[in-house]
Amino acid sequence: MATNSVFNPNPVSSFTSSTVSTKGDKQWPGCLMLNGKQMHVRLSNGYRAKARSAINVNSTAIEIPHQWYNLVADLAIKPPPPLHPKTFEPVKPEDLSPLFADELIKQEVTDERFIDIPEEVIDVYRLWRPTPLIRAKRLEKLLDTPARIYYKYEGVSPAGSHKPNTAIPQVYYNAQQGVKNVVTETGAGQWGSSLAFACSLFSLGCEVWQVRASYDQKPYRKLMMQTWGAKVHPSPSDITQSGRKILQMDPSSPGSLGIAISEAVEIAAANEDTKYCLGSVLNHVLLHQTVIGEECIRQMEAIGETPDLIIGCTGGGSNFAGLSFPFIREKLKGKINPVIRAVEPAACPSLTKGVYAYDFGDTAGMTPLMKMHTLGHDFIPDPIHAGGLRYHGMAPLISHVHELGFMEAISIPQTECFQGAIQFARSEGIIPAPEPTHAIAATIREAVRCRESGESKVILMAMCGHGHFDLASYEKYLQGSLVDLSFEEEKIKESLAKVPQVQA
Amino acid sequence: MATNSVFNPNPVSSFTSSTVSTKGDKQWPGCLMLNGKQMHVRLSNGYRAKARSAINVNSTAIEIPHQWYNLVADLAIKPPPPLHPKTFEPVKPEDLSPLFADELIKQEVTDERFIDIPEEVIDVYRLWRPTPLIRAKRLEKLLDTPARIYYKYEGVSPAGSHKPNTAIPQVYYNAQQGVKNVVTETGAGQWGSSLAFACSLFSLGCEVWQVRASYDQKPYRKLMMQTWGAKVHPSPSDITQSGRKILQMDPSSPGSLGIAISEAVEIAAANEDTKYCLGSVLNHVLLHQTVIGEECIRQMEAIGETPDLIIGCTGGGSNFAGLSFPFIREKLKGKINPVIRAVEPAACPSLTKGVYAYDFGDTAGMTPLMKMHTLGHDFIPDPIHAGGLRYHGMAPLISHVHELGFMEAISIPQTECFQGAIQFARSEGIIPAPEPTHAIAATIREAVRCRESGESKVILMAMCGHGHFDLASYEKYLQGSLVDLSFEEEKIKESLAKVPQVQA
Repeated sequence: MATNSVFNPNPVSSFTSSTVSTKGDKQWPGCLMLNGKQMHVRLSNGYRAKARSAINVNSTAIEIPHQWYNLVADLAIKPPPPLHPKTFEPVKPEDLSPLFADELIKQEVTDERFIDIPEEVIDVYRLWRPTPLIRAKRLEKLLDTPARIYYKYEGVSPAGSHKPNTAIPQVYYNAQQGVKNVVTETGAGQWGSSLAFACSLFSLGCEVWQVRASYDQKPYRKLMMQTWGAKVHPSPSDITQSGRKILQMDPSSPGSLGIAISEAVEIAAANEDTKYCLGSVLNHVLLHQTVIGEECIRQMEAIGETPDLIIGCTGGGSNFAGLSFPFIREKLKGKINPVIRAVEPAACPSLTKGVYAYDFGDTAGMTPLMKMHTLGHDFIPDPIHAGGLRYHGMAPLISHVHELGFMEAISIPQTECFQGAIQFARSEGIIPAPEPTHAIAATIREAVRCRESGESKVILMAMCGHGHFDLASYEKYLQGSLVDLSFEEEKIKESLAKVPQVQA
Repeated sequence: MATNSVFNPNPVSSFTSSTVSTKGDKQWPGCLMLNGKQMHVRLSNGYRAKARSAINVNSTAIEIPHQWYNLVADLAIKPPPPLHPKTFEPVKPEDLSPLFADELIKQEVTDERFIDIPEEVIDVYRLWRPTPLIRAKRLEKLLDTPARIYYKYEGVSPAGSHKPNTAIPQVYYNAQQGVKNVVTETGAGQWGSSLAFACSLFSLGCEVWQVRASYDQKPYRKLMMQTWGAKVHPSPSDITQSGRKILQMDPSSPGSLGIAISEAVEIAAANEDTKYCLGSVLNHVLLHQTVIGEECIRQMEAIGETPDLIIGCTGGGSNFAGLSFPFIREKLKGKINPVIRAVEPAACPSLTKGVYAYDFGDTAGMTPLMKMHTLGHDFIPDPIHAGGLRYHGMAPLISHVHELGFMEAISIPQTECFQGAIQFARSEGIIPAPEPTHAIAATIREAVRCRESGESKVILMAMCGHGHFDLASYEKYLQGSLVDLSFEEEKIKESLAKVPQVQA
């Protein structure tokens, strides 16, 4: 049995190359002890420099903020109102009542600067908040950049992204109002998971339409929602009128967020005890996400840093707004002056290639018309892996802020994003979701520019989630089979032609 | 286009059931503002009680410990030494040199009470440590128990479990000694991921033999390791002599940790620049994990709690030891007197049904003989989902401590574990890995006993990792197709018959 032993009964030279001093009579505890003083060997300086690279700024403890911040209050020019999809008149709060809890409608339209976070919501936030602000010193070293790179990491939430920041209050306000079920759509699965998580804590029923491309690509996201007790349908589904209509035209439709929204909204509208929750785009969603930026301001203050550049990915825009809006407030006060840069996928470039116009939030045209950067409400983006960024529009408030010149936008193709993700994962240790790889790639571009210019800029990056459920996309990248889908100007022109003509 | 609108152009009654006061002339920002005072509606007391349930004790900030704790130093009766697999004589440190870094060999045999954690290791620990200690108040409420349940949550590490606590120092000491590659085995994939993560931060090559059952069941764990740059082989593989031997006997062998260890050890022994790393069982591994218990002692002190009962799952035993050993020190000092309970799967019950005897750590008989609770080194447990608990033996130090009467052990079948996991996930929001579901099930048993007896015991539970890569097992459970594999006494008798006869 022991014939395969790798141990030489009489070891001779195998230990001679070692630096440890041992003697034949030194054995195990209970036999004879080794010299304790030899336990801590010295390190070469080079190695020390390499290893001393992660600084979790969180060690400077801060409290969870007790208020959300509403940027609208500080804007001299207010954003244009949503319009009723039939009358083209400004939507009234009561129009939204079949869909949303009353408190959320109030938050959607408020001009209060700060909104108290209910103690019950903070109690749940405590499961993962404050989230860490981490200096990416190993990535800096890898890139040989004088820039100082920080990332605010939201992947520590139970659902793995920033989305629970708003799922918890949305479900809380619905539960408080006596709503029994909520419905929603999900692209990458992060929002659906977050809502399922929230519903499970507050004992609400939860039903999710998951974009078919994601439903097929990411079975684990579906299983996660089911584990939390939610029902999950691939979208387009044959459960709804909107879904059936799409399936008639294209039975193998990969789906889109716009279609899935239509399906969920349809069900909410048809059921008294059911309301709809949206994971991004709307003002109240962006509002809830500002806990990220509020925390980050305190964390950066605590370590004496000020961002020169803030970078985040944008799909619907909530994570980006969550980090950047509180900094825009400080910018408006004249306290700081960071460049604020949104990064979107080249395959779905609403800010960089869309028009700023009134359009529907969903594909079927059931939602209010919102003035936003849009690629057209029936634009179906290529099935890139960053499912959370496959939305035809951009949050109206971000679109407005962009028009006001408070921020800028770029787009990046997905192979460059995954290249950056591998650099990040292998230096920083955290595997990012495909969405924040866009912020990572943009950060790397800037860090490399800093290497060339010698500038030691402070870059703050929104790292909105982990990639535990996106590893199939990494497999594709590592196998070399991930491609940059060619951007079809024609396709966008077609869908833009269908944007409703509104005089506003 | 807007014909499917869910909005009634002239809303009449849809808003009447609502408690929100709105008027027709109240519109959106830019139009007219709602009254800010109405933003915060009152809550019913019942609801407040329900939601106010998560207390992240971490808000009482503590520092990462700067020393690991070595329980051996405080034991009046020292554990028996490992024996050479051929001579049956106590192994000498130099015998282990082909396999392990010198510093780790020293730590394996030291009797120093505290070992300084290198600053470079603490720098990496800062990515996720201190880990949260969370009071499971929602679970308490669900179980209607007067017990106070706390869990120390290690799933926040980048690899998702407690394993990086030792992967980082192991790779660090190897890197410092100039080793180029490390090899290892992995069961559930958590250890392999952790080693791959550590190697990626310290730029070492990493090769992992993953137990075939897990390799097939959990492709995402493999992809995670590959994303960090590791090579992954299913075990048994045809790369090694030990693997080929097993495949000859059973080409469809599901593998076992014992087999995978044989394969990795064989490669390490055959290559000068390659060493072997083990994720559990050995003294130095348990030592590194004591950061968990050291943190936890400070966290419990900070909130003025003392555990009456400490519960953890045991496979190789490192997570259990990591939490409990520092508490055993305090127990030996007479400061506290908690019951300490190990929980193992009914399908692999080394502590409850094994013998305490010298046995090999691997299947092929290449490792030293260790005195431990064992089911026999060629015992192949049923492919239960808690892959990390499918090891034929138990850490020698835990086995010794068990013999000394400092702790007790029970076993639980997997369906009861998953039932507990669902209760935990849906009340606490965190989806556990299959391994800690054993601790959860045992905690629930105790909490229910407390409900019956009226005792308000303080239960401290080791929650060693999340289940993001184990969702297929949840799917099986939710579908009702998860079964308790019948425990075969005959099978264990057979493998126990092959435990070597050693006089010690």
